[in-house]
Amino acid sequence: MYLARGSSKLMLKPKTTQEVSEILAYCNSRCLAVTPQGGNTGLVGGSVPVFDEIVLSTSLMNDIIHLDKASGILVCQAGCILESLSTYLEDHDLIMPLDLGAKGSCQIGGNISTNAGGLRLLRYGSLRGNVLGIEAVLADGTIIDCLSTLRKDNTGYDLKNLFIGSEGTLGVVTAVSIQCPPKPKAVNLAFLGCSSYENVLATYSECKNNCAEILSAFEMMDLQSMKFVTTNLGLSNPLGECPFYVVVETSGSDAQHDEEKLNKFLEVVMEQQYVMDGTIATEPSKIYALWQLRERINESMMKSGVVYKYDISLPLDVYYDVVIETRQRLGDNVLGVVGYGHIGDGNLHLNAVAPTLNKTVSDLLEPFVYEWTAKHKGSISAEHGLGFNKRNYIYYSKSDAAVELMALMKAKMDPKCILNPYKTIPVCKPASKQ
Amino acid sequence: MYLARGSSKLMLKPKTTQEVSEILAYCNSRCLAVTPQGGNTGLVGGSVPVFDEIVLSTSLMNDIIHLDKASGILVCQAGCILESLSTYLEDHDLIMPLDLGAKGSCQIGGNISTNAGGLRLLRYGSLRGNVLGIEAVLADGTIIDCLSTLRKDNTGYDLKNLFIGSEGTLGVVTAVSIQCPPKPKAVNLAFLGCSSYENVLATYSECKNNCAEILSAFEMMDLQSMKFVTTNLGLSNPLGECPFYVVVETSGSDAQHDEEKLNKFLEVVMEQQYVMDGTIATEPSKIYALWQLRERINESMMKSGVVYKYDISLPLDVYYDVVIETRQRLGDNVLGVVGYGHIGDGNLHLNAVAPTLNKTVSDLLEPFVYEWTAKHKGSISAEHGLGFNKRNYIYYSKSDAAVELMALMKAKMDPKCILNPYKTIPVCKPASKQ
Repeated sequence: MYLARGSSKLMLKPKTTQEVSEILAYCNSRCLAVTPQGGNTGLVGGSVPVFDEIVLSTSLMNDIIHLDKASGILVCQAGCILESLSTYLEDHDLIMPLDLGAKGSCQIGGNISTNAGGLRLLRYGSLRGNVLGIEAVLADGTIIDCLSTLRKDNTGYDLKNLFIGSEGTLGVVTAVSIQCPPKPKAVNLAFLGCSSYENVLATYSECKNNCAEILSAFEMMDLQSMKFVTTNLGLSNPLGECPFYVVVETSGSDAQHDEEKLNKFLEVVMEQQYVMDGTIATEPSKIYALWQLRERINESMMKSGVVYKYDISLPLDVYYDVVIETRQRLGDNVLGVVGYGHIGDGNLHLNAVAPTLNKTVSDLLEPFVYEWTAKHKGSISAEHGLGFNKRNYIYYSKSDAAVELMALMKAKMDPKCILNPYKTIPVCKPASKQ
Repeated sequence: MYLARGSSKLMLKPKTTQEVSEILAYCNSRCLAVTPQGGNTGLVGGSVPVFDEIVLSTSLMNDIIHLDKASGILVCQAGCILESLSTYLEDHDLIMPLDLGAKGSCQIGGNISTNAGGLRLLRYGSLRGNVLGIEAVLADGTIIDCLSTLRKDNTGYDLKNLFIGSEGTLGVVTAVSIQCPPKPKAVNLAFLGCSSYENVLATYSECKNNCAEILSAFEMMDLQSMKFVTTNLGLSNPLGECPFYVVVETSGSDAQHDEEKLNKFLEVVMEQQYVMDGTIATEPSKIYALWQLRERINESMMKSGVVYKYDISLPLDVYYDVVIETRQRLGDNVLGVVGYGHIGDGNLHLNAVAPTLNKTVSDLLEPFVYEWTAKHKGSISAEHGLGFNKRNYIYYSKSDAAVELMALMKAKMDPKCILNPYKTIPVCKPASKQ
């Protein structure tokens, strides 16, 4: 995304937790800064060495330690690639509780360090619920073994969640224990067109009502998104031109029951005219093809130039308003403003596409988008994290007291600040808050 | 449970977060210890003032702040009673994601401070997944407002989970935002008898296979539990005498589909002879009556004398072994040793019933039960917490380094140790670990 350029003279590739411990103990004693790096697929510069940090890559730490087939609990090293884990689990009729576009190269340790969201969150919940245990190494080399495989454990403070989402600034995640759900026996997909955002919401409400426990994704993309994937990638739109498109996926244990539920839902939304047009798929190849329309939006926009990306959470009643306002604000300065995302999680991907990097566009976007999000009590980073690029914007979503407490924890757990410096925790308060 | 006697000369009942903040700021400045107290229903003495702590009761902080009916997100003060919230939500076709025996008096702030588990965890997951935001007051009176209503927010460290389960030792939870699932349209219950623990496990496996997404509880009680509820409470056993009983509950959005799934499951387990006998219920009153057999075990045992209670998590392959070994070990020293619990979560309630408090029994039980649990990589407190009674046993389930990190956090967040002292964090390492 042209926003963070790496600079490092040394990359270390440990194979064991013990080696990570020795590396960090040494670096800490010499005040050498370290950037932990998984698949390096993050979007906020969290895994980029900014000045001269030593890169600590987990890519050789890719052993599967144990799988309990009966309970579905997987224990593995942090460097396992998400897609490799998925493939491995498939043979045992299990799936990973998360799935995302970068699965071919992202690593589970990075997923956990960034609290990755992705496409299955609506059904299986967040990593904070699915990760049962973590092993991590602190800045001074101390190994914290909380690699529990228990669903319930109320003995002391929740250290695990300190490492989830803290982007390698409090410790390096070296192994993980994760609850994997059974592979669904039936998957169905409906690709629908709606005439308005209000109808998208009405469709979502009906969907929850009829498909409740089998609903595994409810995604929205606007017409502008559709134009990018059809024009730039040559994918074909299975429906007519609609202002909004919705992808509904169900996964359950009985194909016939799931189809009945989906059909009942479709009857209602067609009858109520919430939905203008639609198609359904039960064939894996057709499901795959329809998902491509949603999954490849990002790739399609990049073919037109530079993409300014915002990953925000908003209450659903104002969810799409920010797209409309941003579009008006940017006008002819850009090739397009696009909104798509995970309606089920309130997570919007707001993107502006310009031919080249352009200060006028940046100035129109920031702080406008952050201020808008803060005003509506949203999060300025729903799933991408803060990393290097967004750390100073934390105040738009967190109070001064909360940020101070975070900084206190960082100072105590990594007093020499060797772990992923310049990330997550802001440099200083903005002038308006001082 | 006769294990912690309270002692306090003063109880304060603030109504607002601001008042909590002022109380703590004052107490901190004067080094006055404070015990936050919700419904006072905990089982490990966490809410009991041990020496002369001031009790800070949240019982007047019981306002419902906001309910977003469309998303099911509830925001309320910490002192709301769990059952009152359930009743309130019922009118909006929603339910609380947790349910437990003490619902009539326990408060949501206490539930969160103890990371309560209960009967719905298998279906809806833990509070760590369902709580979206928390407002808490630190020892010095600083208000930490993380009362987000967003499902996704990756801006900085996860402060929320620090307060969940830390038993009021890091801060006082004053308000909470929680994701409430839709009220299921259909609930079914099967009460089954099994000839062996192996058959209980085989039944569980088939149940997950056939009922997957609608399975909302899978509970086990042994014959000894059944004898206590029938003999001491006069409840009637709907089945013949079986070594084990299982309660399977499904909840879903389509009654007919759910019944079909349950029947298919029952056909398999009867045919395979995993199940000896069984009855099903769809009528709310019959469901309620059958649940009583499981829910009133604790009450029934207390009628016979003193109950030594252990709340542990274990891998399922050794889950029931500890009951057998404890029974052999205690022999005629007790009236009975009982095992029941949430198979779906690996959570066992192991109880020994004696006519009176008895040192021989205590010495036979401890440290035996803790050592057994540690040897099998279980948790010595699955859902009850550590509180006052169990804090020194933390080393059976957590490493030295993990406990040291917890103690560091406590020392930094509450340097004068005014918040619920003598709880959660151990006094000192056991001799064997020094």
